[in-house]
Amino acid sequence: MASFFLNNATPEFLFIRTSGNPIDAKGFEQMISDDIFQEKAEITKIHRFEFLSENIVMCIFTLDSKFTYKGEPNDDLPTFTSIFKKENNVWKIHWMQRSTGNSDLSLWD
Amino acid sequence: MASFFLNNATPEFLFIRTSGNPIDAKGFEQMISDDIFQEKAEITKIHRFEFLSENIVMCIFTLDSKFTYKGEPNDDLPTFTSIFKKENNVWKIHWMQRSTGNSDLSLWD
Repeated sequence: MASFFLNNATPEFLFIRTSGNPIDAKGFEQMISDDIFQEKAEITKIHRFEFLSENIVMCIFTLDSKFTYKGEPNDDLPTFTSIFKKENNVWKIHWMQRSTGNSDLSLWD
Repeated sequence: MASFFLNNATPEFLFIRTSGNPIDAKGFEQMISDDIFQEKAEITKIHRFEFLSENIVMCIFTLDSKFTYKGEPNDDLPTFTSIFKKENNVWKIHWMQRSTGNSDLSLWD
């Protein structure tokens, strides 16, 4: 999990955290390893999965995320905007932004 | 401002608010008209402007946003992920997600 983006993201990948601050694949690995104990990370619902072009996909989803951050338990339901790119026939994640953990799934109905 | 997305977005456009909840162009217009008095909305810095394909642009930026929401003053510095699409030779906004207002601009240096 910690090294997921190191292995599956483009070199330019950034993850925009809830705060609005960016973190790269290496920084994400460090954060997960040092500060986070992840109990659960499951995609609850994919709201949109769209080919923007042959080699670009935009995927919007809600994650059910239970974890302990610096000792603090969290039970979050954030929305993610993610962009995937096919490079040399391999799909890589290119961009991701996470909302707060308080989203209301019923608003997507 | 209130009707910006109604005039400049694709029909499938959604704006993911800080909460993670989606709002469409019509809902955004209503929210701005009813609940928000906007004093300032200026792009402070564009962190990335990338053609994902000929007709798709991804733009990541920080907004300097001062407004009153239901009587409550806000002085925000959120990060936005936005996707633009060229349709019939006209650029339209297709997707947007906003972070919290507490981002740290120095982390982009």
